[in-house]
Amino acid sequence: MTKVRVYVAYKASILDPQAQAIKAATHKMGYQEVTELNVGKFFDFEFDAEAEIARAKAIEIANELLANPNMETYKVEILNEQSEGAN
Amino acid sequence: MTKVRVYVAYKASILDPQAQAIKAATHKMGYQEVTELNVGKFFDFEFDAEAEIARAKAIEIANELLANPNMETYKVEILNEQSEGAN
Repeated sequence: MTKVRVYVAYKASILDPQAQAIKAATHKMGYQEVTELNVGKFFDFEFDAEAEIARAKAIEIANELLANPNMETYKVEILNEQSEGAN
Repeated sequence: MTKVRVYVAYKASILDPQAQAIKAATHKMGYQEVTELNVGKFFDFEFDAEAEIARAKAIEIANELLANPNMETYKVEILNEQSEGAN
């Protein structure tokens, strides 16, 4: 079993009004220390597969389902590895 | 400057139809290895503050703005630390 996290966020070139609104809200609340804010989604998968297969499947799922390639980028991260048997 | 990531996700007791729909879609696409899926949001902050102050501010912002305490939990993680001067 492998836990894989996929992060999906807007490309840097895409304006994100949600992030801007939240950043403005933090300033109104008095948190002037906030200089940057980026917002995205994460998808925590558990795969019944060893790490490298799980990573490859997660990349395919990100490309085919999770991320809009026009506006978004993604990053895949293996959270833990519990391989059983030979690998 | 400190980079802090805040993860917000549903409590385990809350049913997440979006995660269920995505998990079902992965199975339809042939990715039977997917056994679990949890979905959430992340907020990447940059604070003009040293790490421990930034972490405390991020927790306050999560409590007061980002997370719905009735349905959601959050986790705060310091991504990097670049402290300047004394600390």
